[in-house]
Amino acid sequence: MEDMTLQSCRTFVDVLASSAPTPGGGGASALVGAVAAATGNMVGSLTVGKKKYAAVEEEIQAMMEQAAGLQEKLLDLVVKDAEVFEPLAAAYGMPKDTPEQQAEKERVMEICLLAACEVPMQIMEACCQVIDLAAVFAEKGSRLAVSDAGVSAVLAGAALEAASLNVFINTGSMKDRVSAAALEAKANGMLDRYSVQAAEVFRAVREVL
Amino acid sequence: MEDMTLQSCRTFVDVLASSAPTPGGGGASALVGAVAAATGNMVGSLTVGKKKYAAVEEEIQAMMEQAAGLQEKLLDLVVKDAEVFEPLAAAYGMPKDTPEQQAEKERVMEICLLAACEVPMQIMEACCQVIDLAAVFAEKGSRLAVSDAGVSAVLAGAALEAASLNVFINTGSMKDRVSAAALEAKANGMLDRYSVQAAEVFRAVREVL
Repeated sequence: MEDMTLQSCRTFVDVLASSAPTPGGGGASALVGAVAAATGNMVGSLTVGKKKYAAVEEEIQAMMEQAAGLQEKLLDLVVKDAEVFEPLAAAYGMPKDTPEQQAEKERVMEICLLAACEVPMQIMEACCQVIDLAAVFAEKGSRLAVSDAGVSAVLAGAALEAASLNVFINTGSMKDRVSAAALEAKANGMLDRYSVQAAEVFRAVREVL
Repeated sequence: MEDMTLQSCRTFVDVLASSAPTPGGGGASALVGAVAAATGNMVGSLTVGKKKYAAVEEEIQAMMEQAAGLQEKLLDLVVKDAEVFEPLAAAYGMPKDTPEQQAEKERVMEICLLAACEVPMQIMEACCQVIDLAAVFAEKGSRLAVSDAGVSAVLAGAALEAASLNVFINTGSMKDRVSAAALEAKANGMLDRYSVQAAEVFRAVREVL
């Protein structure tokens, strides 16, 4: 599986726009999550080493390490999303002419759908952490970069929502309704809490500009 | 000025995270806008040529051309945002020891601030158009790609909000309060209308999944 994050931004966007199976909406969400984490990290880069912010230096350093980790994780999830899509697409194409074929297709589909839910769930979890960091970057980071902390929160909130659609489209096709409901409840819990928090950071930053 | 969109996604994200002057929050917004346009375009790519959607073939083709144009425009705005930031950063560093120097600095700053507002305003305008297209892709595009239409709307809505922060941070520093107020009113008008529309597309897509 080609690592699309090693391609230029223009190529990534061009292939995304095409009918090529990947990257799709999940990969787009993960890339935007990585951009959000990096924008938060930038606030840290513009804060550390400045006398005015010496009191928060250590805290900001620790947050930057977390942001850098999330940034890497989200870029890796662009690749993982493509890896789980391929077998799912193949499973959709399996024959179902006989009851045996139908049963086998259902069995394989269920495994692939679960794997295809797992990646956007991980994207969502990482984006929640990016939003938590953005809230603190907005509060304690350099005032000169406060708009960037707002950008980080807003973009991470959108990546969270975008990834959730890739959870819901797959849980909707799952036969195991208990597992599907559990995944949906977890995704809805993250959406409920963190969409609000991202919007609050945006509002707070907008007010001080 | 180096065209950062020709760099790999990983490099873009790494440089964004650093204290390098560009790309900053404006460039991040423009890239996310381009990703949003491309995700909408993908819905079109997965719709055209399918018998089931023959009735909307021409309309979808026309929308794909628009989406491709917006995608290119937003990638170019990543570069333009970097181009207008450089002279602004230089202007911030001008001396103001004498009344003459102070007057000259104010004069140059005002020109640079206006230019630095113009680019995020163009990002916002393009994102509004991406949201308009996403609403129609969600309604008329292939049902198999409806989640991607939702992703397009959500990401474009966030890029719109993120770019607005880059308008407000610059209008806040402008001495010409009449021009500043006009720019802010225009930005707020786009936010009021299109943040709501992006959220509505997200909600509508979520309901059909």
